[in-house]
Amino acid sequence: MTELVSETETARSEASADQIQSAVHAIADRSRAASRKLARANRAWKDRALLAIAEALKAHQPGLLEANARDLELARAEQLAAALQDRMKLTPARIDQLIAALHNLASLPDPVGTVVRGQTLPNGLRLRQVQVPMGVVAAIYEARPNVTIDIAGLALKSGNAVILRGGSAVAQTNSELLSVIRDALETVGLPADLVQSVDHYGRAGAAVLMKARGRVDVLIPRGGHELIQTVVNESSVPVIETGEGNVHIYLDESASVNSAVEIVLNSKTQRPSVCNTVETLLVHQKFSGLSEVLKALAEAGVRLHADSRVLAELPTGLVATEATDEDWATEYMDLDLAVGMVDSMDQAISHIRRWSTGHTEAILSNDLSNTERFVAEIDSAAVIVNASTRFTDGGELGLGAEVGISTQKLHARGPMGLSELTTTKWIVHGEGQVRG
Amino acid sequence: MTELVSETETARSEASADQIQSAVHAIADRSRAASRKLARANRAWKDRALLAIAEALKAHQPGLLEANARDLELARAEQLAAALQDRMKLTPARIDQLIAALHNLASLPDPVGTVVRGQTLPNGLRLRQVQVPMGVVAAIYEARPNVTIDIAGLALKSGNAVILRGGSAVAQTNSELLSVIRDALETVGLPADLVQSVDHYGRAGAAVLMKARGRVDVLIPRGGHELIQTVVNESSVPVIETGEGNVHIYLDESASVNSAVEIVLNSKTQRPSVCNTVETLLVHQKFSGLSEVLKALAEAGVRLHADSRVLAELPTGLVATEATDEDWATEYMDLDLAVGMVDSMDQAISHIRRWSTGHTEAILSNDLSNTERFVAEIDSAAVIVNASTRFTDGGELGLGAEVGISTQKLHARGPMGLSELTTTKWIVHGEGQVRG
Repeated sequence: MTELVSETETARSEASADQIQSAVHAIADRSRAASRKLARANRAWKDRALLAIAEALKAHQPGLLEANARDLELARAEQLAAALQDRMKLTPARIDQLIAALHNLASLPDPVGTVVRGQTLPNGLRLRQVQVPMGVVAAIYEARPNVTIDIAGLALKSGNAVILRGGSAVAQTNSELLSVIRDALETVGLPADLVQSVDHYGRAGAAVLMKARGRVDVLIPRGGHELIQTVVNESSVPVIETGEGNVHIYLDESASVNSAVEIVLNSKTQRPSVCNTVETLLVHQKFSGLSEVLKALAEAGVRLHADSRVLAELPTGLVATEATDEDWATEYMDLDLAVGMVDSMDQAISHIRRWSTGHTEAILSNDLSNTERFVAEIDSAAVIVNASTRFTDGGELGLGAEVGISTQKLHARGPMGLSELTTTKWIVHGEGQVRG
Repeated sequence: MTELVSETETARSEASADQIQSAVHAIADRSRAASRKLARANRAWKDRALLAIAEALKAHQPGLLEANARDLELARAEQLAAALQDRMKLTPARIDQLIAALHNLASLPDPVGTVVRGQTLPNGLRLRQVQVPMGVVAAIYEARPNVTIDIAGLALKSGNAVILRGGSAVAQTNSELLSVIRDALETVGLPADLVQSVDHYGRAGAAVLMKARGRVDVLIPRGGHELIQTVVNESSVPVIETGEGNVHIYLDESASVNSAVEIVLNSKTQRPSVCNTVETLLVHQKFSGLSEVLKALAEAGVRLHADSRVLAELPTGLVATEATDEDWATEYMDLDLAVGMVDSMDQAISHIRRWSTGHTEAILSNDLSNTERFVAEIDSAAVIVNASTRFTDGGELGLGAEVGISTQKLHARGPMGLSELTTTKWIVHGEGQVRG
């Protein structure tokens, strides 16, 4: 194990699959041991650790920026896309944001120890179902180095050890972040092994992590479609699928025109690159404000992808491309919007069922029976009536912090807070009871 | 699809992988459509369906017993183990038990619609997180035909469609049960496709089911170790792992001897073939009642597998084999018990960490700090103080009905009731709110 870690990059690629498996399993076993210490730490201790990490980030800012500059130099040499280079970048301001996020985490209540259910049974057994840490959480993610601090902070606050697998493009930044975090943990008397990485073992290490069921309790992929699908398909460790949002707004005949303009605009343009931004607008054929909505979108720089009926009603001066099935399926994450016209709410619901990723859908309507039916029939993590789709967010919904937005139905659905990083334990107290 | 269903057994095996995939996907899509109807059915309607199935089981008892007799005839011809043949068997008394279980399910509260959390945000948005059905639940299980009724009833009550893959040994029984259930659903105006099976497509069908992520919301394996591990390793659909219980009791120095005898005996002998029966007993070296406990076990016919220290203190007249690592690892599910002696509770905890499946562990002790530390440090679904391990059971813990006992940490841990077959949906109501 120690030898393997100190090997050079070249030698690493020669490490056998067995050696990598043993090394990653050893990391997971050290995580488990460290997690047992943290599980007994009270909230005050965990908060001290978060604040110590925050302080260390400030103190080590020059070293972090240097490591990040080396990653960025390589990225430029390898001509990575400019947007990706921007996402990779650490700046003093971005480090301040990470520090603020850690302070915010420290201010949040600790879910561990919360009694979820409890009762005394007729035979006198006293039951409690209590929230406890998962144990070992793993995260596989892409280039943004802020995820390293983000996931480590959330895991620690909820009492878990964490194993990270970050993007190779920011390997030097992540390695520096990791050593800052680990040192800070030790200064407050917690094991450094609460936060470890398998980056050294490359893709082969990530593959072992995905199969380490029993050693790793939950795996959270954060990144693009391809990353998430790979993790979902290859893992035997339970996965929480996060993030993909092909979000729809249905504009009912009865919707207020002014409000529709404002909500659609906000849902598309307030921050187009995130998962809760709207990607398809479905408009009832009798809605009277279509041209106002389209004009406002065009003025805000939104590129329209319209079906033939919307194209036919396009206000003079606006341009739009004809929407294809690819548009209905696409999560643009940019200033693009697919727009379709429907004869009825049922047609809108059918369209959503076919194309939605189950993240968020909204109805804008003043018709009570339509809104109630929409809420009942749409099977998504969040269903919104007469408000922006941008509200599907842990911070906005009052969870304090967000691990991600789950689009699966098991364990967590929608924005995940600290509670979603815990499991439960039944504790049963008796005085000699046996079953008859 | 229809052609494929009507093919003979020989022809079926020639169906291409593509044909089987299309057929199983078509089944899942019909389940999804049917589940949408059920999601809108109120409790009274769902209870009528359960009672209609109960009535139909009674009415079709002769046909069910005949189909079962044909399965049993084949089993005898193929010389299946006697225990397996017994588990396969339907009798009038067993059918009555299934009917009673359906009546019990109908009497339980419906989890669907329960508001889990809710608040009004400072900006006036009104939030509710509401329990809703998963949608499509699949179950892969072994020979016991009662699981067919059991899982179908639980799924229906919680608003889900279900796709079944039962054991081939009881194929004729399951096929008859399925047609009884489907007819009964139609008599109350619900779609027959709420309950379907992929048994016709054999192992290849089960393989497609395990990969149908998005079409199937959760997969529940019920059966032995091998079945569960196959499902866990091969599925991309989220799985809830149930059932394996390598259960431990730690007998502390301070435990009451009489109570220890009674609890250990009950935990081992009250129903040895189930997952919450104790499999290993760890005794503190200073516990004074070891010989009483061992004598009581031997008198009850329990075969002892003892470590060398326990062997050295074996009361005269008792016999025991020497325990090996295999014994510590084994879930006997029979009148066998591994017994080891420990120097300290820490040694017991280390042993449990190494060998436990995380189902249930108990401590028998009168020492407050020991019991509290045991409860805090043991990471199992249920931790029991001074009572029988047989209490880890949905019925005993007040859940009313049990889907299985989850030994994983995601979504559900320990006995799973109807609530664990639901997910949640965030419902957000506004009056034009947008994000600033």
